[in-house]
Amino acid sequence: MTTDPLVVFTPSGKRGHFPVGTPILTAARQLGVDLDSVCGGRGICSKCQITPSYGEFPKHGVTVQDDALSEWNKVEQRYKDKRGLIDGRRLGCQAKIEGDVVIDVPPESQVHRQVVRKRAEARDITMNPSTRLFYVEVEEPDMHKPSGDMERLIEALETQWDLKNVKTDLHILQQMQPILRKGDWKVTVAVHLGDDSHPPKIMHVWPGYYEGSVYGLAVDLGSTTIAAHLCDLKTGEVVASSGIMNPQIRFGEDLMSRVSYGMMNKGGDQEMTRAVREGMNALFTQIAAEAEIDKALIVDAVFVCNPVMHHLFLGIDPFELGQAPFALATSNSLALRAVELDLNIHPAARVYLLPCIAGHVGADAAAVALSEAPDKSEDLVLVVDVGTNAEILLGNTDKVLACSSPTGPAFEGAQISSGQRAAPGAIERVEIDPVTKEPRFRVIGCDIWSDEDGFDQAIATTGISGICGSGIIEVIAEMRLAGIVDASGLIGSAEQVGTPRCVKDGRTNAYLLWDGSADGGPTITVTNPDIRAIQMAKAALYSGARLLMDKFGVDTVDRVVLAGAFGAHISAKHAMVLGMIPDCALEKVTSAGNAAGTGARIALLNTEARGEIEETVRRIEKIETAVEPRFQEHFVNASAMPNSAEPFPILESVVTLPQVNFNSGGDSDERGGRRRRRRS
Amino acid sequence: MTTDPLVVFTPSGKRGHFPVGTPILTAARQLGVDLDSVCGGRGICSKCQITPSYGEFPKHGVTVQDDALSEWNKVEQRYKDKRGLIDGRRLGCQAKIEGDVVIDVPPESQVHRQVVRKRAEARDITMNPSTRLFYVEVEEPDMHKPSGDMERLIEALETQWDLKNVKTDLHILQQMQPILRKGDWKVTVAVHLGDDSHPPKIMHVWPGYYEGSVYGLAVDLGSTTIAAHLCDLKTGEVVASSGIMNPQIRFGEDLMSRVSYGMMNKGGDQEMTRAVREGMNALFTQIAAEAEIDKALIVDAVFVCNPVMHHLFLGIDPFELGQAPFALATSNSLALRAVELDLNIHPAARVYLLPCIAGHVGADAAAVALSEAPDKSEDLVLVVDVGTNAEILLGNTDKVLACSSPTGPAFEGAQISSGQRAAPGAIERVEIDPVTKEPRFRVIGCDIWSDEDGFDQAIATTGISGICGSGIIEVIAEMRLAGIVDASGLIGSAEQVGTPRCVKDGRTNAYLLWDGSADGGPTITVTNPDIRAIQMAKAALYSGARLLMDKFGVDTVDRVVLAGAFGAHISAKHAMVLGMIPDCALEKVTSAGNAAGTGARIALLNTEARGEIEETVRRIEKIETAVEPRFQEHFVNASAMPNSAEPFPILESVVTLPQVNFNSGGDSDERGGRRRRRRS
Repeated sequence: MTTDPLVVFTPSGKRGHFPVGTPILTAARQLGVDLDSVCGGRGICSKCQITPSYGEFPKHGVTVQDDALSEWNKVEQRYKDKRGLIDGRRLGCQAKIEGDVVIDVPPESQVHRQVVRKRAEARDITMNPSTRLFYVEVEEPDMHKPSGDMERLIEALETQWDLKNVKTDLHILQQMQPILRKGDWKVTVAVHLGDDSHPPKIMHVWPGYYEGSVYGLAVDLGSTTIAAHLCDLKTGEVVASSGIMNPQIRFGEDLMSRVSYGMMNKGGDQEMTRAVREGMNALFTQIAAEAEIDKALIVDAVFVCNPVMHHLFLGIDPFELGQAPFALATSNSLALRAVELDLNIHPAARVYLLPCIAGHVGADAAAVALSEAPDKSEDLVLVVDVGTNAEILLGNTDKVLACSSPTGPAFEGAQISSGQRAAPGAIERVEIDPVTKEPRFRVIGCDIWSDEDGFDQAIATTGISGICGSGIIEVIAEMRLAGIVDASGLIGSAEQVGTPRCVKDGRTNAYLLWDGSADGGPTITVTNPDIRAIQMAKAALYSGARLLMDKFGVDTVDRVVLAGAFGAHISAKHAMVLGMIPDCALEKVTSAGNAAGTGARIALLNTEARGEIEETVRRIEKIETAVEPRFQEHFVNASAMPNSAEPFPILESVVTLPQVNFNSGGDSDERGGRRRRRRS
Repeated sequence: MTTDPLVVFTPSGKRGHFPVGTPILTAARQLGVDLDSVCGGRGICSKCQITPSYGEFPKHGVTVQDDALSEWNKVEQRYKDKRGLIDGRRLGCQAKIEGDVVIDVPPESQVHRQVVRKRAEARDITMNPSTRLFYVEVEEPDMHKPSGDMERLIEALETQWDLKNVKTDLHILQQMQPILRKGDWKVTVAVHLGDDSHPPKIMHVWPGYYEGSVYGLAVDLGSTTIAAHLCDLKTGEVVASSGIMNPQIRFGEDLMSRVSYGMMNKGGDQEMTRAVREGMNALFTQIAAEAEIDKALIVDAVFVCNPVMHHLFLGIDPFELGQAPFALATSNSLALRAVELDLNIHPAARVYLLPCIAGHVGADAAAVALSEAPDKSEDLVLVVDVGTNAEILLGNTDKVLACSSPTGPAFEGAQISSGQRAAPGAIERVEIDPVTKEPRFRVIGCDIWSDEDGFDQAIATTGISGICGSGIIEVIAEMRLAGIVDASGLIGSAEQVGTPRCVKDGRTNAYLLWDGSADGGPTITVTNPDIRAIQMAKAALYSGARLLMDKFGVDTVDRVVLAGAFGAHISAKHAMVLGMIPDCALEKVTSAGNAAGTGARIALLNTEARGEIEETVRRIEKIETAVEPRFQEHFVNASAMPNSAEPFPILESVVTLPQVNFNSGGDSDERGGRRRRRRS
């Protein structure tokens, strides 16, 4: 029976006996307790702060006396004087065991601390970054035992931190000798802990103890926009977020027009590769400036994107993705070096690209799967990432299906006569009175509705410039609910609808939402081609979801998650009125925000999640919409618009409903339209 | 008891029973017999040629009937018609076992064939190159089972060649899709089989079966010259050799002046790095043109160099190497990518640098150790690599010591009044008649001695331009033997020596070797400063060797190997007259040619040798001459010149010998000079 004191760590519950005089940090390491340290117990970094508890602990079977730990010492006092230390806290490397003791490791002292996500249903992120900091004392050179400075630095990492087979990049070799001497052979080293393709590598060396942090980028490379989060790899905190338009837009708004550009123009793919990499670098410069950090401190980056962007970013001609069988050059995840992609961050920074699921379902969908984890959901969840292309996942713990649907950019306000991207001045919310057919709306950057007092003053600075994606969904859904547009998508005339807001527009009609011409502003209307564009987009989206449901063998889903920046702003009610998403109780429709970006952030902060999503992607069942006859069938049937926010029947039944129906050739009947066959 | 036929392979002696119908290639693979194949048994590559033997083989206990193998087939006939096949040869993938048989695998069908080295005492090189070719048939894409083209290619390498965890570089991903389609999903792949820092990687992909080869470079990066061998990685053959002057010479002739240049000029080290890399690229372009191959087929390169060149080539400021404790930035071997060093060969080509032994003993010395293998020598061998710096190894199977000595460039003809590098027109051999004091000599590019008939016509094109390194050694040694120069290194006057060839040259005398002034050519003399320069150089060389002998505890060595391009041309007799090398029987002094270059070639062709030399270098005992008081002592004593080609006594006794001695202040005595103390 041992007489050594017992140490119990909370919250882990790990416990063990240690000789009197053992530092708490040493005991924690021996028990595998997650207690951080950068300086290796030298009283420099203060990462190993712990809180001893005193008194009776029947649960642990321990009584902790006041003298259970060694006395508060000079190192701790100096640290407290200089930097402050919460009362009751001790430094784990200084406090030594004198008797039985219970030690709490606060979250900020844990290496694998949790980064809390805001949404209730989302799992927290466990910190496990690729790159960590280590303080080491390096043996000085001795000409009688000649060895390289690097070899002695690597030896120090092995003996002091148990890091094995550490390598270094050439650029570190080129810089390291003066740094070692400046730090008097004490340095802080950032080590990338390695991956499948690479051994652990030294990324950075600072003289002495380095107080700062290293950073990583989580980048969502979309067809239209590129968004990046800059994260602190020590805390997991997002220190800056920024976005730019994808500079490739000048080569084509949608993906297929970019693929065509590459086919029609020799070197066109390389031109697009250059453009997106240049855009990326501009974004990184911007985000680092915003966070006021040196770009060279960015040592890791995770990218998610659709397959075409994936190939163009990598410098691969996306030609094959433009035609069956849509063969990806590579589908697996990729671990590259930033220099290979001409990225101007840390010269040896790593780049991780999530795996692609299929030729049309990219790393962005994989990232959504990582963030929303349908494979871990007990109930059947439909995850829809609405962007220029919609990626759709359907699944539960049994299996997950995935497909993509070519919605086009209409949902983002493109191809819409008064459309614009979501920016101040854009109409984002709309209501139409079903009786008077009069609209009221709200614009981004203003909290007041257009029919409320003070609206004119409130929008004085932004003005009203157009309708953004969520606004166009709402206005068309409201037009449908108010009987301004029929199930087939035709807008009635002023006489048919009974409002002068319905105006002639060539052979069809348009609905006047806002006339700013008196003040020299725009006249904002919703035209019949606008409605056609939204019909095509929503039919594509719906058909993809429906196809997955067929493949899964279900007619309903338990819940729907709308992802994508656009998904965050969409009104579930209006989406259902339009028939964008299948039948589901309204309260079961939630928004996940930029889930692809969140997935990228998870993969950035937790390298284990990378292996996890690679495994999940291997198991996901991929459905290719382009060659599924049922997709075409669903698509043909899905362009009409139901007129209720209730769970809506699929089109076969919708068209039989008695409801308004406008025929551009006149022959109208405002109440109870007649059945009408659409041209296929 | 099995009734399956017995197959015996020679020369390996491996044997086993196989079912009737088993192809010989399959049997060889199962037994681990070294039988080459690129196409994997598809009858395309013909690498698996074997020679069956028929009749009685009592040694193997086998009788081979005429029908022991399946009949000669169409594939073999087609190959023979198209390419030719030696009579009696079969293709191992086509010939199937029908009865007991003895199969000889000829050397050219072995993967690990031997590359025969010319010297009797040198070991042959076993082929085991980093990069090999593999022919594979890749599964076509299927949109219902989406996976990347690369993943299917890698799967083919795994299933058809048992290559695991193969990765690819980005540039291959960028090119591979059209190649796969052009080859109708059959491709030949060059795979770098990986090293300590890197997993196996695809380096090249060709459509269909690729007939050609891939190449590697063995580069000896010297302070003065850069020499490269271009080797076929399939056969081991040197297909071209070429050399250039090191462009860094403009920054300083010797290493320390380059280190100083870096210290005195901001960015000077980077300037020198650029210069050497540019020179390297020019050399590679030249050598590839000479061999008429595409530079992109060069997939591997091995470099050997001294520590300063090593650092400058890598882009590391050699500052620390210029002062004690001479700390290398890194001493271990390095596995890099050619792009990191701005080399314009294959974009993913690998670069391997041999380890450095110490701050003054570089990867070139490691390469010499690999080529000359003192650690495998039963007798005690002194290996001297004579260049701008001399690297010296002393050892046997017990232990190996190493040091370097700063000889300076005098041995290469620099710092010599009429010195030049070894090129046509340079005097390389000299004899002086001890009675008449008249010289005769030979110049590079001409087989006739200067006193033979037809000499004038023979040298009409080259002319006589100067003296190269080996020439200067010979002329000074001959001057010493002819009594023209005394043991202290002074040249006698015309009166003292008794020849008008001794001419006044300031306060000292010079010896006129050749007067070409009548034809507008140069006047070639050996001056007293020339002799001083050679004395300093040879004293450094000798003292280093002597120091190692002290450390080893010996007074003599069993044999001496002179390495270096210069070592190949030096006359052992004259080297001993000058006291360049310690006491050893003349027939035990051999030349190894460019042993550093050979070491590089071994490491290029046999990757296992890389690990071997890394291990050897770890075990080599490093002696730092700069801080060894005994080195200074030896040096002071070693600048005088003994006057006999017999095993020469060290200087203490030399100076006591009665011999010629010239004093610039007159007071001469041609026969039996008096004792004289040198200034220290």
